[in-house]
Amino acid sequence: MDKDIAALMDIALFKNLAPEKIQSVMHILRKVTFSANEIIMREGDIGDTMYIILDGTVEIAKSLILDDADNEESGKNKVFTRLDGKQHAVFGEMALLEELRRTASVRAVTDCVMYEMKKDDFLKVAEEDHELGYRILLNLGRIVSARLRRADEDTVKLTTALSIMLHEA
Amino acid sequence: MDKDIAALMDIALFKNLAPEKIQSVMHILRKVTFSANEIIMREGDIGDTMYIILDGTVEIAKSLILDDADNEESGKNKVFTRLDGKQHAVFGEMALLEELRRTASVRAVTDCVMYEMKKDDFLKVAEEDHELGYRILLNLGRIVSARLRRADEDTVKLTTALSIMLHEA
Repeated sequence: MDKDIAALMDIALFKNLAPEKIQSVMHILRKVTFSANEIIMREGDIGDTMYIILDGTVEIAKSLILDDADNEESGKNKVFTRLDGKQHAVFGEMALLEELRRTASVRAVTDCVMYEMKKDDFLKVAEEDHELGYRILLNLGRIVSARLRRADEDTVKLTTALSIMLHEA
Repeated sequence: MDKDIAALMDIALFKNLAPEKIQSVMHILRKVTFSANEIIMREGDIGDTMYIILDGTVEIAKSLILDDADNEESGKNKVFTRLDGKQHAVFGEMALLEELRRTASVRAVTDCVMYEMKKDDFLKVAEEDHELGYRILLNLGRIVSARLRRADEDTVKLTTALSIMLHEA
């Protein structure tokens, strides 16, 4: 089997896709490179592209403080996590569903090689091959559902911290 | 057109489904009733059922404080929102993707009539009709993506509140 197809079959987003479906996916992937320190996406920008890391490491950061001119911490970023090519990590996958503002910024830590997939290309292939569209969206739904659960847990933790502080104040 | 089919075509989850696809969906829906004050789902329980409200009003509540035996506020619930049949509101839709712990509790405020759809029935129909599966999952993905954005915004607001309190402490 083609080495690239084997790599894609490893990715959670492409779970349960037969090799010939992966082949169709390959047709809409484009190989792109980023240099160390290059910004790949900026939080708040509109995006229509998903990325799969083939080689290199990126850093995901998110501003955690509301924008406020009077607040010197305005725009403070928190680095959430690093992703690399070893796990064929995927990011920006919500953009396959609709064009949205990015919810985090991503910066290349090292030189990176990635595949990119555009929303319009994905939706076109999915309209032509509903099985492919169905399987990818089922995988995407499960990835996003896990993320939603983590966001819910964060809300509970933050509310708990606020409640403790209000009692001690 | 059948009145029930017209009602289902109004629902965001079934957007862009042709009437004959809605007909297939009808086959896996079961009409259920709940009495006023009855608990429909409990946060933390494992669930495999999605609900569509046809008539009546429900209340969605979520505990916002981490469980802690020493904390008298342990398990405190916050009522988030009310949903009713006028908008054919849908809840528990994440259960179509996988069996998960419910992230909120739902209580009937009035007597309610609903359709329920089970995960296994949905996945069976979707495996037989990939177009139907694809269109429903695309709609579900967009619903969940909107919810994930709101959860992210809540995290930012809570972090901001914590930061302000830490500065004033």
